Amino acid sequence: MTFRVAVHVLPRRGILDPQGKAVGDALRTLGFAGVTDVHVGRHLVIDTSADSADAAKAAVKSMCDRLLANPVTEDFVIAGVEAA
Amino acid sequence: MTFRVAVHVLPRRGILDPQGKAVGDALRTLGFAGVTDVHVGRHLVIDTSADSADAAKAAVKSMCDRLLANPVTEDFVIAGVEAA
Repeated sequence: MTFRVAVHVLPRRGILDPQGKAVGDALRTLGFAGVTDVHVGRHLVIDTSADSADAAKAAVKSMCDRLLANPVTEDFVIAGVEAA
Repeated sequence: MTFRVAVHVLPRRGILDPQGKAVGDALRTLGFAGVTDVHVGRHLVIDTSADSADAAKAAVKSMCDRLLANPVTEDFVIAGVEAA
């Protein structure tokens, strides 16, 4: 069975996020004066075959640990698992 | 009042996603043979002041239209709005 798993990878809070700072500055320059903070990370959607939703989630957690997220500077969240 | 708005920006389905293809190939090389498809986009978390959650959502939609998403190649979804 195929599952579609969504993952968010974000720079850890407190670690410099130059991309987020650049986007925040650009938004304020465009006139969005209310913007106080921006963080930019990655949103991944992974289609993977697995026996169950739990197995798919465990596989994607392993993928994040081994490839998708930098364990020193980033945090990841598995945001959703659905049958695809 | 400050709201924290989460946005997903993803390459439009059907448009070439070389980053997703590269990540999928790398995952299969690592032994995750069940991976059939990967899409890589951006996950943005924007803190903005607004009068209401609806106003914050409308402001972020305007930010996406004007800066954060490429209207030709990308789709965006406002994934969540919460008081920060």
